Amino acid sequence: MSGAGRLIGVGTGPGDPELLTVKAVKAIEAADVIAYFAKRGRGGNGRAIVEHLIGRDAVMLPLYYPVTTEIEKSEAEYRRQITDFYEESAAAVAAHLDAGRAVAVLSEGDPLFYGSYMHLHVRLASRYATEVIPGISAMSGCWSVAGIPIVQGDDVLSVLPGTMAEQELERRLSDTQAAVIMKVGRNLPKIRRALQASGRLAEAVYVERGTMANAAMIKLADRPEGDAPYFSLVLVPGWESNR
Amino acid sequence: MSGAGRLIGVGTGPGDPELLTVKAVKAIEAADVIAYFAKRGRGGNGRAIVEHLIGRDAVMLPLYYPVTTEIEKSEAEYRRQITDFYEESAAAVAAHLDAGRAVAVLSEGDPLFYGSYMHLHVRLASRYATEVIPGISAMSGCWSVAGIPIVQGDDVLSVLPGTMAEQELERRLSDTQAAVIMKVGRNLPKIRRALQASGRLAEAVYVERGTMANAAMIKLADRPEGDAPYFSLVLVPGWESNR
Repeated sequence: MSGAGRLIGVGTGPGDPELLTVKAVKAIEAADVIAYFAKRGRGGNGRAIVEHLIGRDAVMLPLYYPVTTEIEKSEAEYRRQITDFYEESAAAVAAHLDAGRAVAVLSEGDPLFYGSYMHLHVRLASRYATEVIPGISAMSGCWSVAGIPIVQGDDVLSVLPGTMAEQELERRLSDTQAAVIMKVGRNLPKIRRALQASGRLAEAVYVERGTMANAAMIKLADRPEGDAPYFSLVLVPGWESNR
Repeated sequence: MSGAGRLIGVGTGPGDPELLTVKAVKAIEAADVIAYFAKRGRGGNGRAIVEHLIGRDAVMLPLYYPVTTEIEKSEAEYRRQITDFYEESAAAVAAHLDAGRAVAVLSEGDPLFYGSYMHLHVRLASRYATEVIPGISAMSGCWSVAGIPIVQGDDVLSVLPGTMAEQELERRLSDTQAAVIMKVGRNLPKIRRALQASGRLAEAVYVERGTMANAAMIKLADRPEGDAPYFSLVLVPGWESNR
């Protein structure tokens, strides 16, 4: 360990401030530094959830993503800029850790489950005392607010990104009891076709902004065509067949 | 809605009392009745986690599983006894709901994710005002305490029961970026063989009693042969290949 500081990855859950854990609340209240990823000009969703907990004397350390909208994600240039950004972010956090401070890194949902915190964790956890405080994931927030038993007994659950090729999505939906489809957005028409082809459309539920104040859910078959917001998920419950 | 009561499925998380959400703490403190599944003669793990929160005037409603150790699980008799038990449990909860009480049903981990609460939910949620408060799942507790980034980007995560046939387990481990294998126990030797055959053994991490005070983790390849306790999981992280 090269410094006396402490790195704490804090899961801030799916949106409702009351869905933070007691441990997360205490870690945020006690932190010397609050770090969070955000788009420039925005406060960061993770920060908004915990604003009321942040101490008066805490140092805020926003980590602003570089503006890359004009670069294709597949391009080497995009990858280089993003990697540089994570390296610089880790260095900025490390400077506080070297000064002996406790740095809480806010992470929406669950830090090690598709969370941006992971990019700091892999660069710093081997060098500093590190703790990860789990959070309620977006998918758990969604099936809870929708009241949908997702898996029971010996069910297999597949968590699938909606970005995947249509045939691949169809194949995986045909080969699982339950599924959660993330990254819905403009992939929704493709997701609908894959569900139809795999015979799972009738069971699928579309959940928008789960656990936010304006959450909405509907059977996907009943939802009009068209794109969906980023904070939406499709749930295919597995338990029905075993009940 | 047939009664004025409120049914609340409360996720109590993976074991550490500080991993309850703020919402769960409030719901337990305010509940008129605390219901929980338990083996006869034991307190119930869900109850032990929240003992310090239960109000003095709260009515405790333990729901004791029938003793079925001498019956094969595949037998119709086992299924009948378990179904009767869930029906009777739902009726016991409904009696309190009909009297206008708020009944918190404790559920280890996350209520709708392999949780026993689901058996009450499907019998009561259509008839009473119902809320489900998500909890940190055992798998999230495990990857957090182990500090293992489990999925990132477009990774697929497969949650697999260790009870599954060996060839089926091998096939699925070969066809996913990340995996969580639940229900390890005496299935561990089979799980190890399936990981070996799918080329994933070197990455696999075995976590015992994640987030309990005596948690232990080890690379599965380094763990001696033999059975494992029920509260253990095998994690196969997905992100390594994309980093």
